[in-house]
Amino acid sequence: MIRVGIFGATGYAGLELVRILWRHPVVEIAFATSTSQAGGRLSDIHPQAPDFPLIAPDQAPLDAIDCALLCLPHAASAEQAIRALDAGRRVIDLSADFRLRDPAVYRRWYAHEHPAPELLDEAVYGLTEQARDRLPGARLVANPGCYATSILLPLLPLVSAGALRGPIIADSKSGVSGAGRTPQAHTHFVEVYENFSAYNVGRSHRHLPEMEQALAGWGGAGAPSLIFSPHLLPVRRGILSTLYAGLAPGWSPGRARERLAAAWADEPFLRLLPEGRLPSLMHVVRSNGCVLGMAEAGPDQLILVSVLDNLVKGAAGQAVQNLNAMFGLDETIGLERPELSA
Amino acid sequence: MIRVGIFGATGYAGLELVRILWRHPVVEIAFATSTSQAGGRLSDIHPQAPDFPLIAPDQAPLDAIDCALLCLPHAASAEQAIRALDAGRRVIDLSADFRLRDPAVYRRWYAHEHPAPELLDEAVYGLTEQARDRLPGARLVANPGCYATSILLPLLPLVSAGALRGPIIADSKSGVSGAGRTPQAHTHFVEVYENFSAYNVGRSHRHLPEMEQALAGWGGAGAPSLIFSPHLLPVRRGILSTLYAGLAPGWSPGRARERLAAAWADEPFLRLLPEGRLPSLMHVVRSNGCVLGMAEAGPDQLILVSVLDNLVKGAAGQAVQNLNAMFGLDETIGLERPELSA
Amino acid sequence: MIRVGIFGATGYAGLELVRILWRHPVVEIAFATSTSQAGGRLSDIHPQAPDFPLIAPDQAPLDAIDCALLCLPHAASAEQAIRALDAGRRVIDLSADFRLRDPAVYRRWYAHEHPAPELLDEAVYGLTEQARDRLPGARLVANPGCYATSILLPLLPLVSAGALRGPIIADSKSGVSGAGRTPQAHTHFVEVYENFSAYNVGRSHRHLPEMEQALAGWGGAGAPSLIFSPHLLPVRRGILSTLYAGLAPGWSPGRARERLAAAWADEPFLRLLPEGRLPSLMHVVRSNGCVLGMAEAGPDQLILVSVLDNLVKGAAGQAVQNLNAMFGLDETIGLERPELSA
Amino acid sequence: MIRVGIFGATGYAGLELVRILWRHPVVEIAFATSTSQAGGRLSDIHPQAPDFPLIAPDQAPLDAIDCALLCLPHAASAEQAIRALDAGRRVIDLSADFRLRDPAVYRRWYAHEHPAPELLDEAVYGLTEQARDRLPGARLVANPGCYATSILLPLLPLVSAGALRGPIIADSKSGVSGAGRTPQAHTHFVEVYENFSAYNVGRSHRHLPEMEQALAGWGGAGAPSLIFSPHLLPVRRGILSTLYAGLAPGWSPGRARERLAAAWADEPFLRLLPEGRLPSLMHVVRSNGCVLGMAEAGPDQLILVSVLDNLVKGAAGQAVQNLNAMFGLDETIGLERPELSA
Repeated sequence: MIRVGIFGATGYAGLELVRILWRHPVVEIAFATSTSQAGGRLSDIHPQAPDFPLIAPDQAPLDAIDCALLCLPHAASAEQAIRALDAGRRVIDLSADFRLRDPAVYRRWYAHEHPAPELLDEAVYGLTEQARDRLPGARLVANPGCYATSILLPLLPLVSAGALRGPIIADSKSGVSGAGRTPQAHTHFVEVYENFSAYNVGRSHRHLPEMEQALAGWGGAGAPSLIFSPHLLPVRRGILSTLYAGLAPGWSPGRARERLAAAWADEPFLRLLPEGRLPSLMHVVRSNGCVLGMAEAGPDQLILVSVLDNLVKGAAGQAVQNLNAMFGLDETIGLERPELSA
Repeated sequence: MIRVGIFGATGYAGLELVRILWRHPVVEIAFATSTSQAGGRLSDIHPQAPDFPLIAPDQAPLDAIDCALLCLPHAASAEQAIRALDAGRRVIDLSADFRLRDPAVYRRWYAHEHPAPELLDEAVYGLTEQARDRLPGARLVANPGCYATSILLPLLPLVSAGALRGPIIADSKSGVSGAGRTPQAHTHFVEVYENFSAYNVGRSHRHLPEMEQALAGWGGAGAPSLIFSPHLLPVRRGILSTLYAGLAPGWSPGRARERLAAAWADEPFLRLLPEGRLPSLMHVVRSNGCVLGMAEAGPDQLILVSVLDNLVKGAAGQAVQNLNAMFGLDETIGLERPELSA
Repeated sequence: MIRVGIFGATGYAGLELVRILWRHPVVEIAFATSTSQAGGRLSDIHPQAPDFPLIAPDQAPLDAIDCALLCLPHAASAEQAIRALDAGRRVIDLSADFRLRDPAVYRRWYAHEHPAPELLDEAVYGLTEQARDRLPGARLVANPGCYATSILLPLLPLVSAGALRGPIIADSKSGVSGAGRTPQAHTHFVEVYENFSAYNVGRSHRHLPEMEQALAGWGGAGAPSLIFSPHLLPVRRGILSTLYAGLAPGWSPGRARERLAAAWADEPFLRLLPEGRLPSLMHVVRSNGCVLGMAEAGPDQLILVSVLDNLVKGAAGQAVQNLNAMFGLDETIGLERPELSA
Repeated sequence: MIRVGIFGATGYAGLELVRILWRHPVVEIAFATSTSQAGGRLSDIHPQAPDFPLIAPDQAPLDAIDCALLCLPHAASAEQAIRALDAGRRVIDLSADFRLRDPAVYRRWYAHEHPAPELLDEAVYGLTEQARDRLPGARLVANPGCYATSILLPLLPLVSAGALRGPIIADSKSGVSGAGRTPQAHTHFVEVYENFSAYNVGRSHRHLPEMEQALAGWGGAGAPSLIFSPHLLPVRRGILSTLYAGLAPGWSPGRARERLAAAWADEPFLRLLPEGRLPSLMHVVRSNGCVLGMAEAGPDQLILVSVLDNLVKGAAGQAVQNLNAMFGLDETIGLERPELSA
C-alpha cells in the first residue's frame, strides 16, 4: 500500500481526492488535515464523505506517509512541501506554488517572494501525458491548474509539432467549484444562478504564465502567444475551453486532426471525437477524461473544444494519475475514463 | 410626493424596495443607507440598480422623509425605528422586531430582551389584506415575514370563519434570496445547486410564533395549531407553501372554496385558481401577487397551494402596498399584479 | 455470471441500469433494447454510456439471459414480461404493471384492463428491505415506484408496529428525471428552471394505490390512510419526501425513533441521522441509499424527512439490489452506499 | 393608438412581445395568432400572460392593424408578410426571412427558394441603432437575430471606422429560450442543467451570413471576416458574446475605446462599462439594454464582452424599438434601459 496524507482535505479539490482515493485499491489515506476544522470529521463537511478525522496540518505524522498531497492556498502549500520533503517524503502540490520555473514571474503574479525558489528547478510540471517519463523519479510534482489542463492537453501535440500560429485564443468557461469553497459574494447562489460572466480576460489571469511557460517549452522560439478569457458558468463542475488558432504554413485542418489523433490514440483518458461532433460537460463530469472536438473555420483556422471536470482531470484526478505514475502503478488505477466502455 | 428613506438598501429586500420605488409615481427615495458600504453607490452592489449614493444609517437625514423603511437585522431595526419615531416619522419595519405582541415570546425566540417593548402594542401587523383599516392611522407597521405571508393569506378567510381543524401543516419551500445576501456556507452556489433540503422543521423556525399569534387572533380559543416545515429550493426567488388542514364540522371542500373565493374576489393581488389547477412559482415571480390552488384529499381534508415572490409580496412589495395604504394612496400603485391582465 | 437483458435501455432508468451493471462484477448485460433507436448505439444517447448496440425488443434473444429487466411504459412492460416468463426467464419489472394486486384497482388508475391479471398474485412487490425473504424464489418482481420507495421505507417499521395514526401526509419533491426522457412542455428547460410546482396533489397520483396497498398489508385494518402531494423540483435527480404523521396512543417520538433505529441498524443502504439533523439530496445522489431525518412537532406528532436518488434506490439501484437477492448474491454488490465509508 | 397584430404569440419571442406591448402606452394589441393553439387563450400558455384570445393566423383581421409583428418560423413568416403588405399593412418580421439581401445566400443556408425575393431589396435590416434613419419610411423591417445583435452592436462603430483586422472571433453563449419553445431532446431540462456545450462552431451557424452581410456593408472591401461559435448556457435568458479582434494599423485600444464611447454616448440602450469592468447577464436580463466591457490583450488586440437579453434586445424589445421608430415615437417608449436610472 502507498500511504498518503491529504493537506487541506475540506476544500473541493481535497474532498475530491478523498472521494477518489477512498476506493483506490493500492492507496491508503493515512490522515487528512484542515486548519479551520481540525478536531472535526470529514463527514461534517460533506454528507457523502467518509467519517474520517481531521487533524491540524502541524500535527500531521509525516512518517506515516509515502507522499503528501497538498490542496492548500499558495505560499501555505510551499511551506508544507518543504516540511514534507525535509522529512524525506514525496510531494504532489495542487497549488500554484511550484508550477512556475522563474521566481521573478512568480513574484510578479503573486506579489510576494517565492518561499522556496531553490526547489523550482526540481519540480516536475505534472501534466501527466507530457510528464510521465519524469514522474517515477520525481520528489516534487506541481499539479497543473484546471484551466491550464483543459487548454494545454489539446495544444501539446500541435504546438510541439509547430502546427500553430499565434495568438491562440482560449475562451474558457468553468463551473463554480473552481472558485473554492470559501463563501464569497461572487459564489453566492443568488449571484451565480441564471447568470454568466467573464472575468480577468486577456492577459490578466494568474494561470496565464503557467500556460505560456508550457507553450514556450514545447514550441521554442516560435511558440505561439496566448490570449485567455475565463468565464464563470452557473454549474458546479466542469470546464469547457474553446480554442481558436491559426495553422502554420504547411498545415491543414486534416493534418492537424491526424497529428492529434495519433498523439491521443493510446491515451487512456483523452478522447478525440469524430468530425462533426463537439463535446459537452456531460461527456466528462466525475471522470478523469478530457474529451476534444475539432472543427475548422477556413483552410488555415482551427477550432478546438475541450472539456474536463475541473475537480478531477483538472485537479484531484490528475494528481492521482501522477501519484500512480510516481509509484510505478498503472496510471489508470482508481480513475474513471470519460466513458463507461474501456 | 411621499419621501422615504431605505435603511439597509444593499440586502435583497432593500434592493427590491429600490427597484419598486424607483418607478413609483408618488414616492421618492430620499436616501438609502448601508453600514458596510456607506460612501459607495447602489450600482456597485447590483448592476441593474440605480446609481444612488449609500450613506451611513446614523447620518440619515430623518427630517427629509415622511416614512422610514427598515430592512435591517432584528434589534438593529428596532433601534432605527425608535430614532425615526422620535423624530416624528412613520416607520415600516421589514424585520421581525415588531411582529410579536408579547415581549416574552420575543425573548424566547431571539434570546435577548426586546429593545422597545413599549411599542409592541402600537405596532400594526401589516398583512395588508387584513390590516388595511388600521394602516392609514398607523405610525409603526411590522411587515410580515415571507413564509408567514404565504401561509397566512390563504388561511385568513378560513380560520376567521372557523372552517379548519388543526393541526394545520405548512410545508413551505423557499428560494435562496430568503436566506439573505451575506455569503455563507449554506448559500454557496455549489452547496445549493442540484440540491434540496429541509431545515428547522416542525416547531423550531423563528417565524412560527408570528403565525401562531395571527391564527390565534383570527380563530380565538379554537384556533388551529400549526406545524411548519421550511425547505431550501435551488432557485433565487419564490415561496410555494403546501398547506394541509382538516375541515371543521359543517364544512365541505366546496364551502371552503366558496368562502375563499368570496374573500379574495375583490383583492387586487390575490388569485384563486379554478378547480383542478395548481400554481407554480412562475405565476408570481417579480409580481406582488399571491396565487392559490385548492384541492381536496377526502371529504374533510383540504390542500392549499400558495405561491408568492418572497422579495415582493413576501417583503418589499407588501411594504409598498402598506406604504400606499398608510398614505391614503391606491394600494396597487407601483406594484405588479400576478398576471399582466387587470 | 448472471446474464441480463435490459428492455428500454434509452430511458433514464434504463441508462442508470446500464451505468450500474456495467461495473457489476457478477452481472453481464447480454443485450439492451430500444424501440425508437433500434440499430443505434447507447453511446449515441448519452455521451458517458458504453458503446453498446441497441436492438428491437422483439429481436431480443431471451435464451441468452437469466433475467429480463423491464424499463418500459406500462402495458408494454406486461407484454414483455409474459414473453420472458414464457421463455422460462425471470423478470424484474420497473414499470407499474405488477405492483397492484387487484386488477380492478389497476383498471381504475390506468384506464385499461390489466394485460396479465393471472400474474398479479405471483408478483413480489420488490421493496427489497421488506421483500428479501421472498426474492430468492421469485420469478416476477415488481420494482416499486420512486416516490413510493421514499415514502414506504421510513413508514415500514412504524406502520408494521402500529405506531402511526392517519392520515399520513407525504409531501414529496422530485427531480425532473422522474418525468422521463421524452421531451414535453413541462420538462422543457425554460419551463422548469427557476420554477417549482405542485401537481396531482391529494389522492390523484397514480402511485398512491401502490402505497395504500403496502400500508394496508403492513398495518392491517387499522392502517393509516395516506395523502400524497408530489412537486417538481428544478434538479435532475433526487426525491425528498417530508412525512407528517400522528403517533398512536402509547407511542412517543423517542419510542418511534428507537423502533426505526432498530429496524434500520443492519440495513446497508438505510441511514437514520442523529437527532437534530435533516438530510438533503446531496446525501444520496448517485448512491443506492435512503437517508432519513426525524423530528417531532409536539408530543404525538412526528416529522420524517427521507431522501433517495429516484433513478438509483428509486429505480435501477433497487432493481439491482433485487437482482442480487434473487440470484443469491450479497445485496450490496455493485451498489454505492449513501456515504463513502463502509 | 398604433394597432398591431402578433403572429406566433405563443413562442418565447411572441410572449415577450405581448409582455412589452401590454404596457406600452401608445400601442394596442389587436390580435394574437397561434396555429396550434387557436381557440385557446394566451394565459393557458404562460401563467403571467394576459387572458387574451388566440386566433388562427388565416383569420387574422388585417384591416384592424397598422403593423404586423411576425414571430413565425422562416418561410411561414414570409408568407404572412406578403399577405400583410398586400393588405397595405407594415411589417416587422422577427424571423430570418428578410435579413439576407441575396436570395442565393438564403437558398444555400435554408435549402429552399426564398418565398418572396422581390421584397429583399426593400426590407430594412432593423439593427435600430444603425437603421433608424430608414425606419420611419419602412414598409418591411427584418428584425436582426439575437446572436447577431449581440455581436454587431459593438462592432458597428469599429468596423465602420476601419479599426479592426480580421478574422474577428465571436465566442457566444446563449440561454435556452433562444432554442424555442418546442420541446426537443436538447432542450429537455435533464440534458441542459449542469451541462454546457458548443454547437455549429466556426462557419456553420445560419446566422453567420446575416453578420457577414452587415460587416461587409459597413467595412467595404476590407471588412474583416468572422468566426462565430455559439454555445448553449444552462440559463433561460441572455447572451454573452466574447469578441476577439486585431486592431488595424494606427489603432490602439485607447483609440478604439474612444470611438466606441463616442458612438454610444447618446444611445439610450447601449452602455460601455468603464475600464476594468466586464458585464454579466445580470446587467441586462429583462431590459432592452446591450452592455459592453472592453479589455486589451496586447497593444493591437482587443477583447469586447457584450451582453443582452436574447428575448428583449435580441428579439421583441428591438422589434418594439423599431416599431416606435417606424411610427415616429420616441424609441424608448415601453422599453427598459439596462439600469434603473434614466
